[in-house]
Amino acid sequence: MPSRALRADAERNRCLLLSAAQDVFAERGIDAPLDEIAKRAGVGNATLYRRFPTRCELVAAVFTNVVRDVNAALERALASPDPWLAFVDHVTYLCELQAGNRALADLLANGTHCDTELNSLRAHARDGTINLIERAQTSGELRPDFRYDDLTLILMSNAGLLQRTGDSNPTAWRRHLGYVLDGLRTPA
Amino acid sequence: MPSRALRADAERNRCLLLSAAQDVFAERGIDAPLDEIAKRAGVGNATLYRRFPTRCELVAAVFTNVVRDVNAALERALASPDPWLAFVDHVTYLCELQAGNRALADLLANGTHCDTELNSLRAHARDGTINLIERAQTSGELRPDFRYDDLTLILMSNAGLLQRTGDSNPTAWRRHLGYVLDGLRTPA
Repeated sequence: MPSRALRADAERNRCLLLSAAQDVFAERGIDAPLDEIAKRAGVGNATLYRRFPTRCELVAAVFTNVVRDVNAALERALASPDPWLAFVDHVTYLCELQAGNRALADLLANGTHCDTELNSLRAHARDGTINLIERAQTSGELRPDFRYDDLTLILMSNAGLLQRTGDSNPTAWRRHLGYVLDGLRTPA
Repeated sequence: MPSRALRADAERNRCLLLSAAQDVFAERGIDAPLDEIAKRAGVGNATLYRRFPTRCELVAAVFTNVVRDVNAALERALASPDPWLAFVDHVTYLCELQAGNRALADLLANGTHCDTELNSLRAHARDGTINLIERAQTSGELRPDFRYDDLTLILMSNAGLLQRTGDSNPTAWRRHLGYVLDGLRTPA
C-alpha cells in the first residue's frame, strides 16, 4: 500500500494531467498529441501512461463532468414552461460549448467509444434531447420533420464552421445558427 | 525551340498531371501532397515541378475551369424569372460542387491567393452572387438581413459537415441545407 506522501504525489500528478489535458484538448481537439499534454503538465510521459494507460481513459476523465453539465442543462430545459425557447436555448448552449472547446466540438458531434460511464451519460443526454424535441414539436413550434439526428448534423456543421472561423470571426457561428434555428421553426 | 515530339510529350505530361491533380485534390483537399499527384500521373516529381513550379500554379490550372463554370451558372441564375428559386438553386449547386470535391469545398469557402486569372474570375463570381442576393431580396423572398458573407458561412459549415458525413451519410448535407434555406426565406 503506498504511503500517504506517495498517494498525495499521485493525486497531484493526476490533477496536473487533467488540467493540462483539458487545455490541450480544447485547443487542438480530441486527437491532440499525448506527449504535449505530459509536457504541459510538467510530468514525464511515463507518469501520464501510468495514470491513464489509454487515450480513452484520459478523454473520459476530462469529459465526464462536461456531459454531466449537459445533462443538468437538459433537466432545466425540460422544466422550462416554453418548449420552443427551451429547445433554442439548449441547441445554442451546445454550440456555445463547441465554440469554447475544439475537443468538445468533436465529442458532441461524433461521440466516442471510450468509457462506459461517459457513454451511459451520453445515452441519457440523447433521451433528454429527444424529449426536448418532442415537447417543442407538440407545442407546434418546432417543425414536425425535425429528428434527433438532425441535431447531430447541426453540431457537425457548427464544428466545421468553428474550425474555419474560430480565430478570424469568433461570433460567425451565432449568425449561422440563427438562420438554422429560423429554418427549424414551423411557419406561422 | 523544342521538336514536335518533345512538345507532344510535354502536352501529354501536362494532361496526365492535371487529371491526377483533379482526382487527388478532390479526394484529399487542396493541401494534398504533390508527390502523390506525380505518382498518380505516372511521372517523376521533377516533371511535376517543371510543369507547375508552385502548388498555386497547379491549383489555378485545375480550378480555373470550375470557377468559369460557376460564373456561367450565375449568368443563367441571373436570367431566371424567379429570383428566390434562382438563389436557392445556385446555393444548392455550390454545395453540390463541394460535396463532389473536397478541394473545391475548401476553395469555395476559403478562397486562394494563387493566380491573377483565378482571382479575377472569383471577383466576377462575387459580383454576380451579390446581384443574385439583391434580386431575391428585392422580390421580398430572401430576408433583408442576409449578406454575401453569410453565404461564405454556409459554404464553410457545409464543408465541415461534408468532412464529417461525406462517407457515412452522403446526402446529410442536403437535409441540413434545406433547414438553412428555410431559415433564409422571409416569413410569409
